[in-house]
Amino acid sequence: MSVAADLRLPTLDDVRAAARTIAGAVMRTPFLPAPRLSQLTGAEVWVKYENLQVTNAFKERGALTKLASLSDEERARGVIAMSAGNHAQAVAYHATRLGIPSTIVMPETTPHVKVTATRGFGAHVVLSGETVAEAEVEAFRLAERDGLTFVHPYDDFDVIRGQGTMALEMLEDRPDLDTIVVPVGGGGLAGGLAIAAKALKPRIEIVGVETRLYPSLWAELRDLPIHAGGTTLAEGIAVKRAGRLTLEIARRLMDDLILVEEAEVERAVNLYLTLQKTMAEGAAGAALAALLAAPERFRARKVGLILSGGNIDPRILSSIMVRELAREERIVAIRMIIPDRPGVLGEITTVLGRMGGNILEVEHSRTMLKVPAKGATLDVVFEVRDGAHAQEIIAALEALDYVVERLGGPR
Amino acid sequence: MSVAADLRLPTLDDVRAAARTIAGAVMRTPFLPAPRLSQLTGAEVWVKYENLQVTNAFKERGALTKLASLSDEERARGVIAMSAGNHAQAVAYHATRLGIPSTIVMPETTPHVKVTATRGFGAHVVLSGETVAEAEVEAFRLAERDGLTFVHPYDDFDVIRGQGTMALEMLEDRPDLDTIVVPVGGGGLAGGLAIAAKALKPRIEIVGVETRLYPSLWAELRDLPIHAGGTTLAEGIAVKRAGRLTLEIARRLMDDLILVEEAEVERAVNLYLTLQKTMAEGAAGAALAALLAAPERFRARKVGLILSGGNIDPRILSSIMVRELAREERIVAIRMIIPDRPGVLGEITTVLGRMGGNILEVEHSRTMLKVPAKGATLDVVFEVRDGAHAQEIIAALEALDYVVERLGGPR
Repeated sequence: MSVAADLRLPTLDDVRAAARTIAGAVMRTPFLPAPRLSQLTGAEVWVKYENLQVTNAFKERGALTKLASLSDEERARGVIAMSAGNHAQAVAYHATRLGIPSTIVMPETTPHVKVTATRGFGAHVVLSGETVAEAEVEAFRLAERDGLTFVHPYDDFDVIRGQGTMALEMLEDRPDLDTIVVPVGGGGLAGGLAIAAKALKPRIEIVGVETRLYPSLWAELRDLPIHAGGTTLAEGIAVKRAGRLTLEIARRLMDDLILVEEAEVERAVNLYLTLQKTMAEGAAGAALAALLAAPERFRARKVGLILSGGNIDPRILSSIMVRELAREERIVAIRMIIPDRPGVLGEITTVLGRMGGNILEVEHSRTMLKVPAKGATLDVVFEVRDGAHAQEIIAALEALDYVVERLGGPR
Repeated sequence: MSVAADLRLPTLDDVRAAARTIAGAVMRTPFLPAPRLSQLTGAEVWVKYENLQVTNAFKERGALTKLASLSDEERARGVIAMSAGNHAQAVAYHATRLGIPSTIVMPETTPHVKVTATRGFGAHVVLSGETVAEAEVEAFRLAERDGLTFVHPYDDFDVIRGQGTMALEMLEDRPDLDTIVVPVGGGGLAGGLAIAAKALKPRIEIVGVETRLYPSLWAELRDLPIHAGGTTLAEGIAVKRAGRLTLEIARRLMDDLILVEEAEVERAVNLYLTLQKTMAEGAAGAALAALLAAPERFRARKVGLILSGGNIDPRILSSIMVRELAREERIVAIRMIIPDRPGVLGEITTVLGRMGGNILEVEHSRTMLKVPAKGATLDVVFEVRDGAHAQEIIAALEALDYVVERLGGPR
């Protein structure tokens, strides 16, 4: 793309100009201490709540900066973007606000709820291609054909300086910050932040975070081949290749890049819910996951954690919460092989009830092959206070001569 | 209780003194515009995020104000409170911070997770009595016996002026506020807020919200008998009787009191999640529910909505999210009576898969009595894009001569 060809990088002044551009139209989000996350990680954690933006993610900063930079003629012709996620909604929302026609190309497999949300913000949505790469080809084709300005999600001078505005706010609120931990997809946010933060405070540390499934920038910084792919909870940073501008900024200004595991991302999303009562999408969880993965790396440092977005599917969130309850042994599943005679289920459920086990699911089956002809299996899922409580209940059932098998882990 | 005997009510100066007392130890929470809630309700909505406090609820304001008012001798003897909820954690957390021993009495039926959380904040927890009323009797007894200061959750001069500090922050951030909508349990928050807000801005409107199951203040203001009881999502305001001080303040300063239904509270909790990406407990949802229930009442007004707390059980939250998906027809359950021959399940699931229905649960049963001897029932729960998509899939199954029954509503 031509925008990346000359590798002109934004400066602090460019970021400051972007901040003036977006003032009043993009929320100056709160940046607040999170004492319980601090206690947990040993760092002094502050959280930047970008999930409170209208589209629930930081992408509005870059999108609006880009849109505001267009000439009257470019505005009249309109803009186009390729994204199935937060960038789509950010472009759609601010283009509509400014009276600029917007087209968003999404892969055909995009969940309907995201299509509806993007249309709801006023964009014309085109579904095309099986993959993000194919959708991008179509977006370029339409941009060319209709003279639309392509708004790149990260590899763009204006988008990068727009995302950088976040660093101005963070250092204004907390000038003594030691470290900023930022999720890295294409690298636009990390790039803009690094430019602004390092210019204001050269000793500040910028730590990027990728998932182990998508270590694109990590590999590129080391001149290693990129192996990226798979299903990750952190969809927002599942990017197969950083941008040219963003790679160059990362080479110059990023102090460290940490890779995190899926399980750590899931735990982080759940911690944001339970301790901060806020919804973090996987990409945002990744930043907190880095603190969980390498606490000694951040100990006693003043760390600004970017909660980059809150757009997580409610079904996935719901399943994360229930899996966590199972992990904490607040939900337990057992299987018993029981004699197939009247009264047995009553006896067992009475014991559970008396001991304070709250039954969630019962499955009574007579046809499983490993069960004796006169027997049956009984699976019970129940809620308990904790692991010790579960053990007490199981012991009480065993005392009645039932053989109890604990069914493993989260369902 | 003696504190209520003389009915001395706090003044604006008392609230201001409380604000100085708690500064730095209780978060000055963000008060932010919520454009999507505004669009939905027709009011100009601002949200006060009290769920970001360390104990995830506003109760710290009053608890700390009270604790800080104690003499050295009272501090040395310690404090006691009765609460199974946010007040317990607030007292425990700040007492421990100040080096004051704290005892919290909770009913024996209190969920273990709340007991653990309160102990985690350093309190000595006593489980006593079946009900809140019985636990309170025990708390009074222990207070008397051990010379402990009883920290009432709402009917206390210092607690009320502490809660009132929230109004100072809201009017400082947004002096042109027209209305504050506040959940009402015992009335401490509403009382403190009303005192401070009305003193600063006499024309401001204070609107309380109770659930229809617990209309205690509503009835008392009308001199009607109180009928309060039942299971409500808004546990935090399930109070059977307002305090003496708080009733008097409400009589003088509350402009209106709205009763909301359980379904509205549930919808509000879900809206906070999906639009604001934040967790609201039922009591906090009640305030938003009032805007949903009576939008014309608030139209075009600048409304400050108090998100009083975020402590909601993850299992309940998870179930609210799934029920909402069912309501939006994104999750659908159907039952078919099918011939009991090989290949049928394959045929049906293939149709579902081809048409983009994502199967969540399958139950195949041959023993239900209303099924023909050679037949079986098949229940399928699947995910779809929307109601129209569900209809297409059902039509495709009917075209194959299956009789499809839609199973009602959320499971």
